Amino acid sequence: MALILALDFGGTKLAAALVKSSCREWLRYERRLSPSNADANTDLEIMRSLIASLLQDATPTAIGVSFGGPVDATTGTVRLSHHVSGWENIPLKNLLEQEFGVPTNVDNDANVAALGEYRFGAGKGYDSLFYITISTGVGGGWILNGKLWQGAGGMAGEIGHMVVDPAGPVCLCGKRGCVERFASGPYMAQNAKDILQNQQQHGNILRNLIQNDLNLLTGQLISQAASKGDSIAQAVLLKSAWALGVGIGNIANLINPQRFILGGSVTKAGEIWWNTLQTTARETALPEVSFEIVPAALGDDAPLWGAVALAEHNNSNS
Amino acid sequence: MALILALDFGGTKLAAALVKSSCREWLRYERRLSPSNADANTDLEIMRSLIASLLQDATPTAIGVSFGGPVDATTGTVRLSHHVSGWENIPLKNLLEQEFGVPTNVDNDANVAALGEYRFGAGKGYDSLFYITISTGVGGGWILNGKLWQGAGGMAGEIGHMVVDPAGPVCLCGKRGCVERFASGPYMAQNAKDILQNQQQHGNILRNLIQNDLNLLTGQLISQAASKGDSIAQAVLLKSAWALGVGIGNIANLINPQRFILGGSVTKAGEIWWNTLQTTARETALPEVSFEIVPAALGDDAPLWGAVALAEHNNSNS
Repeated sequence: MALILALDFGGTKLAAALVKSSCREWLRYERRLSPSNADANTDLEIMRSLIASLLQDATPTAIGVSFGGPVDATTGTVRLSHHVSGWENIPLKNLLEQEFGVPTNVDNDANVAALGEYRFGAGKGYDSLFYITISTGVGGGWILNGKLWQGAGGMAGEIGHMVVDPAGPVCLCGKRGCVERFASGPYMAQNAKDILQNQQQHGNILRNLIQNDLNLLTGQLISQAASKGDSIAQAVLLKSAWALGVGIGNIANLINPQRFILGGSVTKAGEIWWNTLQTTARETALPEVSFEIVPAALGDDAPLWGAVALAEHNNSNS
Repeated sequence: MALILALDFGGTKLAAALVKSSCREWLRYERRLSPSNADANTDLEIMRSLIASLLQDATPTAIGVSFGGPVDATTGTVRLSHHVSGWENIPLKNLLEQEFGVPTNVDNDANVAALGEYRFGAGKGYDSLFYITISTGVGGGWILNGKLWQGAGGMAGEIGHMVVDPAGPVCLCGKRGCVERFASGPYMAQNAKDILQNQQQHGNILRNLIQNDLNLLTGQLISQAASKGDSIAQAVLLKSAWALGVGIGNIANLINPQRFILGGSVTKAGEIWWNTLQTTARETALPEVSFEIVPAALGDDAPLWGAVALAEHNNSNS
């Protein structure tokens, strides 16, 4: 019986699970928070202890890994982590293959989640889809012809830094008006802060929620305030949905996939956000271009289930 | 010896050629202008006479067709032509297969040209590329993993209607600030006309070229005036290159192809246009995303050579 070991190196948490191939329930599952002063070595040590506890005397047939940062998927080498230091050019695939002696595949979390949704989630039966995660950042992963499309240099999927408003505010990438600059949780918080500082007489619902401490602003609190009718929170939320909607409409015209699957914390922002997103995407795409936009189905375990798909995928290809 | 018949139904011209499979020179070649009052029937009649003259007593092994308008490539049915009436839902593949008794493949000109450049032109050896034609309109065709990618509904490649400036002028599609609204020849002419009407004291080089008749403005004359230093012509040309450059940079981030190959009359606009395009695309893409932008290699015969590739492609797949 084939046994798949699935690993998830997130920015703030580490998780590992064991599953019998073709089963859809975890045999065993372990999860731990990454310490605030973590580096690549401490993360690897924690992961080793999770794996030891999972495997006991068993040997996996294959390992699949989701990594929260840029990865060269052909060699399985991590390029870096934006959250944890020391991950520069770590050959994670080789490390794990030497340690456990079984075929290992590593890819970045957006690609792995795209594969997971395609095999087990909201993408089942759809051979062309774009998975988008909208939370701390905005990223994406492609399934085309039923396979991951990572691009010539492994960099495909970067919807976050598509320019949708050349007159917009400056993004961390240096350009103006990227999708991420409007749509991500932290940027929504920053945009709300800027408006609250300039419009002292508005946004009382939001001000009350954060007890007037602008540093407590989060995407989640903005969604809460918007659903209660706060005008500033609603404006920020609508702009997030608008930017993402323009991006999705442009992509529908360019690649014409069947489905867009949206995951990540910001997708819990509620009906206003979803409706604006759907309307804007439909208006941006040409009338003859068809597509659906649906929420992701796998939730917090998406990277792990995606890692299972990655390991099974590898086995079936070899 | 396999004999390929290649057909090109352009908006204003019809062309047909015959080639021995794996040869790279035409055996015979015929070309005729489409009359100004043409409809689908007259175009088909002209094409039949070109074919009869080409074939004489020979029988082709396969037929490849480039059509200047939206096509359902899976059934080979023309959806419509924006230039010639009566093409709505014409089953061109079936028509030709019944008439000549050989396998026929039909696709729109941007996809066919992409395939042609990939097999015989500037895309040889590049398994992922985006071909863009910039002339009367702006359209594109994808090669991914060495194969045409037409999208789930056959609509992929529509870079022309990607929004790059939501505050820009209204496009024929109803949206504001699409790539095509700045980059195509006719829209460059319109944009120059608008500026010339509002700035009476500028644009003398361009005014002289058109002898003050604003209706004579074309993309080509704007390029000429720009190369001679006309400030209005240069502004219009830079905006064309900027819009296309933003589009290409966004697409590099999203799909990460190896090459962008640019064809069509506007690509003859000269060094200012190319330099601005290259710089803008590079600034729009993330630093770690690599790509090249190169001119198309096949020139006016691109649709015919693409049709050869389409026919050979079909033969080798079956």
